[in-house]
Amino acid sequence: MQTIEVKSGKHSDMIDITAAVRRTVPVGMNGICHIFCKHTTAGLTINENADPAVCADIQTALAQLVPWSQTFSRHFEGNSAAHLKSSMMGFSQTVPVKNGALVLGTWQGIYFCEFDGPRSRSVTVQFIAEVE
Amino acid sequence: MQTIEVKSGKHSDMIDITAAVRRTVPVGMNGICHIFCKHTTAGLTINENADPAVCADIQTALAQLVPWSQTFSRHFEGNSAAHLKSSMMGFSQTVPVKNGALVLGTWQGIYFCEFDGPRSRSVTVQFIAEVE
Amino acid sequence: MQTIEVKSGKHSDMIDITAAVRRTVPVGMNGICHIFCKHTTAGLTINENADPAVCADIQTALAQLVPWSQTFSRHFEGNSAAHLKSSMMGFSQTVPVKNGALVLGTWQGIYFCEFDGPRSRSVTVQFIAEVE
Repeated sequence: MQTIEVKSGKHSDMIDITAAVRRTVPVGMNGICHIFCKHTTAGLTINENADPAVCADIQTALAQLVPWSQTFSRHFEGNSAAHLKSSMMGFSQTVPVKNGALVLGTWQGIYFCEFDGPRSRSVTVQFIAEVE
Repeated sequence: MQTIEVKSGKHSDMIDITAAVRRTVPVGMNGICHIFCKHTTAGLTINENADPAVCADIQTALAQLVPWSQTFSRHFEGNSAAHLKSSMMGFSQTVPVKNGALVLGTWQGIYFCEFDGPRSRSVTVQFIAEVE
Repeated sequence: MQTIEVKSGKHSDMIDITAAVRRTVPVGMNGICHIFCKHTTAGLTINENADPAVCADIQTALAQLVPWSQTFSRHFEGNSAAHLKSSMMGFSQTVPVKNGALVLGTWQGIYFCEFDGPRSRSVTVQFIAEVE
């Protein structure tokens, strides 16, 4: 199990961790890469790595769907929106690995989704072998 | 493969199954724990286990996002909202395991998300070894 | 690693790929099946395979939650809604396998979720052995 440290710079942020994940892949392995976020106000997703406007649009749309201020909220920290957005994106991603390389689509990048930053965060990476 | 039985007590419910999952982890193993929900109106997520208001807020926000009564709905059972909320949370969670212990963040718990209860539900748990 | 080709016929579509996935399961294996979508405007989910109105309702509700035209959008392709809906459903699904059979609930099917079709798409399938 390896750990990737992520430093988010804004309250809401999507940080491309693909290169950092790629550096952890064992030489020549076939199977899956399991990436896990150990937080409850940040998550992980996969999405387009070409036009950064995609990530900006995703964050704006999520902020409209799940507004920061919700009159019904009872959580004393006041960040329940970040908790829900994290559950909506998910806390783990699994990516195929072939001959030691991540098998991502042409436009796919792996993103750490910060919903209550800026903070220092960490993500674990593991590798599981495929049945031959 | 092991099975955890879950009894939901309300129409919408988030039930902490972390302790039940923990009891199934093989001694000394390293890898991932795979938890799977065999239903279509209930899902699984990870979120904060400290202040129960977080789970209450998540359920309220989801109910506002995906209201139970939707005029467009054509499904004869009338519970399409539960189906969508389940897909939004997901049907499986994968958690790292190190030396026979779940590697969860300090505030993370594993939750069974009931969206059309109360019902008797079941969840499967499996363990996959990591590449050394 | 095996590949399943999917041809979507509409702009928004949920295509049942359960039978195609089932045909790839190795004889007698125990573990998990990992299905991965290599796109950023399509995802994967699990949901009810009995009444097709469930999938129709899910797509209608998602289109209301994340409208195609969003005045804030900056992405030049104009399909940010498809990107977000894909992240909300997820890009991978993992299903238990026992004695060479997918362990799905009675009403569960595996769905390819097209959000910006019609297009030719592909999905990878892999199998990981369980700890005995």
